[in-house]
Amino acid sequence: MSYKKISAEEAARLLKDNDVIGFSGFTAAGCPKAVTIELAKIAEEAHAAGKSFKVGYYTGASTGDSIDGALSRAHAIKFRSPYQSNGDMRKELNNRDAHYFDLHLSELQQYLRYGFLQKPDWAILEACDITDDGKIYLTSAVGIAPTVAHLADRIIIELNKYHPKELAGIHDIYEPADPPVRREIPVYKPSDRIGLPYIQVDPAKIVGIVETDLPNEVGAFSPSDEVTNQIGRNVAEFLSREMKAGRIPASFLPVQSGVGNVANAVLGAMGANKDIPPFEIYTEVIQDSVVTLMKEGNVKFASGCSLTLSTPALEAIYNNLSEFRGKLLLRSQEISNSPEIARRLGLISINTALEADIFGNINSTHVLGTKMMNGIGGSGDFCRNAYLSIFTAPSTAKDGKISAIVPMVSHLDHSEHSVKILITEHGIADLRGKSPIQRTEAIINNCVDPQYKGLLKDYLNLGQKGHTPQNMAAALAFHDTFNKKGDMRLTDWSVYK
Amino acid sequence: MSYKKISAEEAARLLKDNDVIGFSGFTAAGCPKAVTIELAKIAEEAHAAGKSFKVGYYTGASTGDSIDGALSRAHAIKFRSPYQSNGDMRKELNNRDAHYFDLHLSELQQYLRYGFLQKPDWAILEACDITDDGKIYLTSAVGIAPTVAHLADRIIIELNKYHPKELAGIHDIYEPADPPVRREIPVYKPSDRIGLPYIQVDPAKIVGIVETDLPNEVGAFSPSDEVTNQIGRNVAEFLSREMKAGRIPASFLPVQSGVGNVANAVLGAMGANKDIPPFEIYTEVIQDSVVTLMKEGNVKFASGCSLTLSTPALEAIYNNLSEFRGKLLLRSQEISNSPEIARRLGLISINTALEADIFGNINSTHVLGTKMMNGIGGSGDFCRNAYLSIFTAPSTAKDGKISAIVPMVSHLDHSEHSVKILITEHGIADLRGKSPIQRTEAIINNCVDPQYKGLLKDYLNLGQKGHTPQNMAAALAFHDTFNKKGDMRLTDWSVYK
Repeated sequence: MSYKKISAEEAARLLKDNDVIGFSGFTAAGCPKAVTIELAKIAEEAHAAGKSFKVGYYTGASTGDSIDGALSRAHAIKFRSPYQSNGDMRKELNNRDAHYFDLHLSELQQYLRYGFLQKPDWAILEACDITDDGKIYLTSAVGIAPTVAHLADRIIIELNKYHPKELAGIHDIYEPADPPVRREIPVYKPSDRIGLPYIQVDPAKIVGIVETDLPNEVGAFSPSDEVTNQIGRNVAEFLSREMKAGRIPASFLPVQSGVGNVANAVLGAMGANKDIPPFEIYTEVIQDSVVTLMKEGNVKFASGCSLTLSTPALEAIYNNLSEFRGKLLLRSQEISNSPEIARRLGLISINTALEADIFGNINSTHVLGTKMMNGIGGSGDFCRNAYLSIFTAPSTAKDGKISAIVPMVSHLDHSEHSVKILITEHGIADLRGKSPIQRTEAIINNCVDPQYKGLLKDYLNLGQKGHTPQNMAAALAFHDTFNKKGDMRLTDWSVYK
Repeated sequence: MSYKKISAEEAARLLKDNDVIGFSGFTAAGCPKAVTIELAKIAEEAHAAGKSFKVGYYTGASTGDSIDGALSRAHAIKFRSPYQSNGDMRKELNNRDAHYFDLHLSELQQYLRYGFLQKPDWAILEACDITDDGKIYLTSAVGIAPTVAHLADRIIIELNKYHPKELAGIHDIYEPADPPVRREIPVYKPSDRIGLPYIQVDPAKIVGIVETDLPNEVGAFSPSDEVTNQIGRNVAEFLSREMKAGRIPASFLPVQSGVGNVANAVLGAMGANKDIPPFEIYTEVIQDSVVTLMKEGNVKFASGCSLTLSTPALEAIYNNLSEFRGKLLLRSQEISNSPEIARRLGLISINTALEADIFGNINSTHVLGTKMMNGIGGSGDFCRNAYLSIFTAPSTAKDGKISAIVPMVSHLDHSEHSVKILITEHGIADLRGKSPIQRTEAIINNCVDPQYKGLLKDYLNLGQKGHTPQNMAAALAFHDTFNKKGDMRLTDWSVYK
């Protein structure tokens, strides 16, 4: 190989204060893991010496702890975009020590190309293979890698032997031209391949190769429980009813599913439901449940942006690549999350809400309206453009002290217009074709926990009028009461006049 | 002609209580005007006799008074979707006497085809011509006409001689197939023609022709004033700077512009700015200013869903159809407002906010969070998918008693992620790549009226923490204060703890 082999520390020493980096990866899958650990040490040294050292960076979505965790603990982040899910980073950005700008994941690549965001100086990419003429084969995710590889002047490769070179061919790398000469993205079914299996760069831009063999830092999701399983069964039951009513084609439609334990429970229940035929997945994160369903024959094909799998599930694929190669495809996030494709394919989109309100608006990001949890991720790309957009949530949290369904969401990520069906463990609210007041009835009667039904019905009788009868004095009383008394059930409407 | 000629009253008598209708038109342009006047009378007769008589209906957007006004005054509306802008209808739906479900205009046609909304029994369409084999030539708008013509079992045509038959050819009628067999919508520039100049239906479905010669009921917008003109100049100045910085191509990009006097002022200022080259329009409503700019050579082509023009402007086109035919195209709203096309063409999207908040969220619809003004219209289709999404608003209303910029919008239609630039008469806030707290600085410093700057800065110092420092006790205090004291300037933060 003609590239210079360097250590992770040597690579990190190339970077300077205020530099801007673009990383490969999407979730902990496919992210570099070695250079940023050293970069965090360099930042700590600089800070100890009274010098400033911070970098700005773009990722596909969340990362492993080696990026977001290490750089947060070193207070080395100037700005960061988009999605994250790291505990230390969450502290950093909720303290506003790092500037975080969240956005719909499909938009990041084009905004970088349009020049709307600061150009990355560096691309740091994890690869399973690289050729002397600049063909980079990624590992278990794509994210924004093609775009930052093209935009950055200098590239560092983490060549990771944990990921077999035989992964080559599982990626479909396609970067659209920009307006005014953009054409259609020619994906007409989840398995359509439209690009190349590698990223092509000028080999002169590659300043060094860092060899590693580190596995992905994919954490475990909370296990399913009776509540998430019941939500899953409700989703499957609803979809089955829609098929019988002729509102979903008998051949079914591709499924997009969010991330986490509710999503795993939903997919599991769909696989178990005999009315739902084997289906295809067009999503961003391919989770363990997808691999299970594939083995059982319930999922025919999965197109995503990352293999965000537990080590056993990932190794099961790596040990059977010849079997899985024809059933999996990884794309960059402007294609996996493309509004054009979501609408054309007619995705059945299933995402999880942190909070919903009685009018059908969704908060996916902000705990009690102020603290960032993770980020909006791809939920907006999908729900807005889906054939049918479903949001799920457990009806309560913190032993009932928090109702997931409130008079007004404390932060709004997905408006009433992007939310067709709301499902909790208690039941299904079909919001299609309903006026705001009709939606309140559907949601309170079907989705709200019994201990909150009375409070929410009383809210609607505080004297407010209008098409959407919110009360400006009382709309956020659930949150204010929780902040002051630690329990939304203690909301006293007479205080909010 | 082989169809049965009937009077408007005979046509209206065919409709029954609870029937569902789909209308042609988009805004007052292209809507039927005769049958619904008679239908309102029939409803009033029935009500006087103690009988129920209500219809449900779908339109493209708002209508003339003959539909929304007449049927509202007759209390004859069971449900109504989507956009409206009629004073009597506003009363009806804010009293919740009619169920109104608002949605992104691009979605209505596919939701009707998917079976998500009640099937229309009737299509009532205004046409300038019809052939014996069922080719319907529309008038000055398309809206949802092709879809309701195909779905309804029975069709009534208002054949309107006010509109010349020579309009034929100005419409481009294309209805996409539905998932899982949908293909790309093959529009690559605003002038691309992809369909037929007429709607083809089974002539047996046409139950009667009502002949009319009624002009469109297009109302006048408020004239421009110094505030709207300054907003227009700020938009033009911003776009000129973006071109110079290389963030908008030198050939410019197609423009989508909202409806009303601010939109007219913005387009006027763009035409007057020497740095902005002649450009194309890809929008929903083609207003007077577009025709003016076209005559001056500043607009090269306009694709829209309607010619929402004053009588002199419409007649200027009708009298010069040979000249305008090559410069105008009318499409149905799932194409004029298509997310796929908006993103591919790279629209510069300019829409008006009713209210914005210091974090960059937009309320387009609800006065003080409760009363529906008009509806979300196409603003969400465009701003979410635009190359660059700009929102404009006068900084205050009601002689300063209302600030258009508040701590938290009282209703959220477009989230922080769909809003890149906010412009008032005071200046320009560029929100790209900014964290929430950075956005508050940009907006307060550049866009807020001086008499509200102190109040908004003080809001951020009420002790709240977090990534988005909202205060659940005080976030809606501007609105609550206005409701109680009639002036947001009287907000006293010490009351909201």
